[in-house]
Amino acid sequence: MQGQGVVKGYAIGRAAIMSAAALEVVHYRIAEQDVEAECERLKKALATASGELQAMAVSLPDDAPRELGPLLTVHSLLLDDAALLQETCDLIINRHYNAEWALTTQGQLLAEQFSVMEDEYLRERGADIRQVIERVLRVLSGSTALLPSLEAGDAGDSLIVVARDISPADMLKLRGARFAAFLTDLGGPTSHTAIVARSMNVPAVVGLGHIRMLVRDGDILIADGFTGAVLVNPSELVLQEYRQRQAAYAGDRAELALLRDAPAVTLDGIQIKLEANIELPEEAVAALQAGADGIGLFRSEFLFMGRRDLPSEEEQYQAYASVVRTMAGRPVTIRTLDLGADKTLDGDVTVATNPALGLRAIRYCLANPELFATQLRALLRASLHGHVRILIPMISHMHEVRATKQAIEAACESLEASGVPFARNISLGAMVEIPAMAIAIEPFADALDFLSIGTNDLIQYTLAIDRGDSEVADLYDPMHPAVLRLIAHTINSAERAGIPVAVCGEIAGDSRVTRMLLGLGLTEFSMHPQQMLDVKKEVRLAHSNALRVKVASALNRAERIDLAALSN
Amino acid sequence: MQGQGVVKGYAIGRAAIMSAAALEVVHYRIAEQDVEAECERLKKALATASGELQAMAVSLPDDAPRELGPLLTVHSLLLDDAALLQETCDLIINRHYNAEWALTTQGQLLAEQFSVMEDEYLRERGADIRQVIERVLRVLSGSTALLPSLEAGDAGDSLIVVARDISPADMLKLRGARFAAFLTDLGGPTSHTAIVARSMNVPAVVGLGHIRMLVRDGDILIADGFTGAVLVNPSELVLQEYRQRQAAYAGDRAELALLRDAPAVTLDGIQIKLEANIELPEEAVAALQAGADGIGLFRSEFLFMGRRDLPSEEEQYQAYASVVRTMAGRPVTIRTLDLGADKTLDGDVTVATNPALGLRAIRYCLANPELFATQLRALLRASLHGHVRILIPMISHMHEVRATKQAIEAACESLEASGVPFARNISLGAMVEIPAMAIAIEPFADALDFLSIGTNDLIQYTLAIDRGDSEVADLYDPMHPAVLRLIAHTINSAERAGIPVAVCGEIAGDSRVTRMLLGLGLTEFSMHPQQMLDVKKEVRLAHSNALRVKVASALNRAERIDLAALSN
Repeated sequence: MQGQGVVKGYAIGRAAIMSAAALEVVHYRIAEQDVEAECERLKKALATASGELQAMAVSLPDDAPRELGPLLTVHSLLLDDAALLQETCDLIINRHYNAEWALTTQGQLLAEQFSVMEDEYLRERGADIRQVIERVLRVLSGSTALLPSLEAGDAGDSLIVVARDISPADMLKLRGARFAAFLTDLGGPTSHTAIVARSMNVPAVVGLGHIRMLVRDGDILIADGFTGAVLVNPSELVLQEYRQRQAAYAGDRAELALLRDAPAVTLDGIQIKLEANIELPEEAVAALQAGADGIGLFRSEFLFMGRRDLPSEEEQYQAYASVVRTMAGRPVTIRTLDLGADKTLDGDVTVATNPALGLRAIRYCLANPELFATQLRALLRASLHGHVRILIPMISHMHEVRATKQAIEAACESLEASGVPFARNISLGAMVEIPAMAIAIEPFADALDFLSIGTNDLIQYTLAIDRGDSEVADLYDPMHPAVLRLIAHTINSAERAGIPVAVCGEIAGDSRVTRMLLGLGLTEFSMHPQQMLDVKKEVRLAHSNALRVKVASALNRAERIDLAALSN
Repeated sequence: MQGQGVVKGYAIGRAAIMSAAALEVVHYRIAEQDVEAECERLKKALATASGELQAMAVSLPDDAPRELGPLLTVHSLLLDDAALLQETCDLIINRHYNAEWALTTQGQLLAEQFSVMEDEYLRERGADIRQVIERVLRVLSGSTALLPSLEAGDAGDSLIVVARDISPADMLKLRGARFAAFLTDLGGPTSHTAIVARSMNVPAVVGLGHIRMLVRDGDILIADGFTGAVLVNPSELVLQEYRQRQAAYAGDRAELALLRDAPAVTLDGIQIKLEANIELPEEAVAALQAGADGIGLFRSEFLFMGRRDLPSEEEQYQAYASVVRTMAGRPVTIRTLDLGADKTLDGDVTVATNPALGLRAIRYCLANPELFATQLRALLRASLHGHVRILIPMISHMHEVRATKQAIEAACESLEASGVPFARNISLGAMVEIPAMAIAIEPFADALDFLSIGTNDLIQYTLAIDRGDSEVADLYDPMHPAVLRLIAHTINSAERAGIPVAVCGEIAGDSRVTRMLLGLGLTEFSMHPQQMLDVKKEVRLAHSNALRVKVASALNRAERIDLAALSN
């Protein structure tokens, strides 16, 4: 079976199938006189489930992954939403659905609003809805057992959890036992399963489709967290092969771990900064543990998603400040809201013909000055606690830089007027992700304090390719000479203007192209914490100036760069 | 009132309101026993209307605009479509609609398929459907009078036609009298009204919304074909002002007409090529009359639109050959199909999230090799009659150039095998409209015979702006230094490779930026024939090399170019 490997590693073990109340829910109509009692039953179940989650969140065991606490709180808040209770009750009252039916119907409706979103991260927030509904269904059914008891007779084998999806609360429950891997039908690389499994360093494969239905308790499984392959009841030959791979990988990891405290310096003595991309405040801990020099990209979308109201200045301030404090003086680069017409805050579907070329990111923020001002004030206040850098997405015109500076100035004045403490002289930088900015970068480099190249979008716009469109995804090409010329031009212009420049797109964490990026003159890489040691290893083996000569000569002729020719 | 001026000039005259059968149609249900008779009535009306159009097309008066013939034929063919009769009859049979109601319903359905298209040109082909339906409705109602008789008492005034829309057949009927202007509720710059009015050199304003309902017969109107303004019953002061403007403009045109046969040479002796962009084969005549050095862009979409089947090789060959023969040895640059997932041939709506970044143009053609091969064979055959150049849209990768060359080679072999005569060694060029190609242009310039910069799309992709999206249209900026750098880089690289390069986007016909384009080193401009004399005038007043120095110095600093500073 083939899924998406989201935490690297190999696992061999026996399947333990997790129950899924939502799959076994019964639908029936209730009598008119029982409507009120059914609503009451629903209300109680919601309260019980929410209470359980809250209790878990506040009494987390010390050895539980640190990501779990905030995720549990978010889930408990989702259940407290008055609209969820109201709208589900309406289904009971108007259509005489039983509580389980009403709840799955309403849950599907909510989850669908997320499923149409373009952004994978937001799309997967639909999983939160599904997971909390699942929890309430379990309360309604009275069942609590998550996994079968497989201990007897199989004491020597490790267990591999096979589930439709795993909620943070399930994760906490499973934590007691040691599992060899997590396999789920649903989810993607930014799902909770992925995030928590990564923090536990347990291999995980998600998006497997129907594995929960197809595998039986006790089946022997091999999970390959690299390729996403799952093998069911393999032959002894295959088992031996994977045992060897497992041992070899463990050896590699041990070797890499020795690099954790080694400096990221090239053979010719160039100091390279390795920073972390994070999506949730909790991930700052993993960044620090991986030895990050700072946060190169902290996406602020998590604050705005899956809710109907806007996050308050105070709520944003707390979230930003928590990361800033965790990073203890290291730079924390926070990107302002990168949503737009295509992913509005309440999950509405867009009407734009080409949302990727529409009112998004800074364009959206400048068109919604109140929303932007709130975020800027929160950022200015958070910068009291350390080193905050404001990063503006999707800039294409110099007048947008000027408008942003005016908005920051106005935010300073408004804080000053109300006597709220904040730090002035906050650094302002911009994502280089629209070709126009990269091509005519000079005035931007003069006007800004730092730059961060967002290669994912830069590649899409430069090639006029939507990578999410399967009909043209094969034309997406990070190695196109035009893309590399834009990166090189940006780095050279930033050097000349005396400001730092990072790459924070996917290629920054891909150790296969680390040498090429060094050859383009890059000295600042921002990536997922998990990728940092692999990249550091490449950095320490590379001769930066020799690479620059090789890469420049290929780019001068607009030739494709041969990665093999860049190795020592 | 404000519309879109599509033919320049000023007009002052009295309103003559054109009837619109579709607006006055009555809806009623017919009895079961009358269904067959009603279908028969519809069938007859369709045949009558089609016959009338065919008759008009073959017996065109010599002094009628040459555009009218083919347009009338297309309209008559639309009415002969068996599906139109069948589906309209179904509405009569199944829903008991009267013929008029069934026809307007079916017409709206067809017109809507076009209205959602991204391409303005195709969108307006919905107008063809509306216009032929209107014609059948008039046959059904028995009314024939188009305009009120206003002659009595108003002999001294010119008449301005005010209509919902004007079909080619209406145009032919109106041609007898001399009208001062055409004003329509519907339509855009590529509507038939615009095309025919342009060929008659009568000022026209389209897209006025509801002028036909708001203006009364005999009202005094001023129409401004420059700004699209229409003034109703203006004061004497305003009338005087516009009479002066009218006289001044007539003087300017007379002066420009003297330029028709003058060479397009700059003050420092650089010979500039002025070519024409055309959309229909018939427009080649206007190109020749305006003194075009060739066709710089012949869009081939007209052959594919508004029909369910694909045009045959023979049909395409005839269309291309007619333009090639008209141009008598001058180069004719024919762009291969520039449609895609967003405007499929049968008018289906796209499912792509961002059609502008999807499977379009050459990507679509390479994915549909049979369709591409048919067009290539027709092009190769047409090149026997003159100088054909094949222009490929939306290239971003060198492997697409190689695939296109292979497709041409295969088309040659297939023609050779079947003994059909054609010319080998046809020129192959590409649109420079994706940033990646412009940025890394060198290998493309080495592999191709010519280049044509499509600034409209190049600007959109470079700035990540969909100009059709009103929320961001103000960010569309042809003067962005990044755009100008890409144009300059393309021109310089083409010069170095020794191949010609043209600009065929809107800015090539905008005489306000002619000097700037000369300053970028451009020597080949392709535009609407109507714009050619204005551009030629600018060319003849400019000193090309002085401009190159000025422009290069601004571009080196990525500064905005001050157009005023480029005038002598």
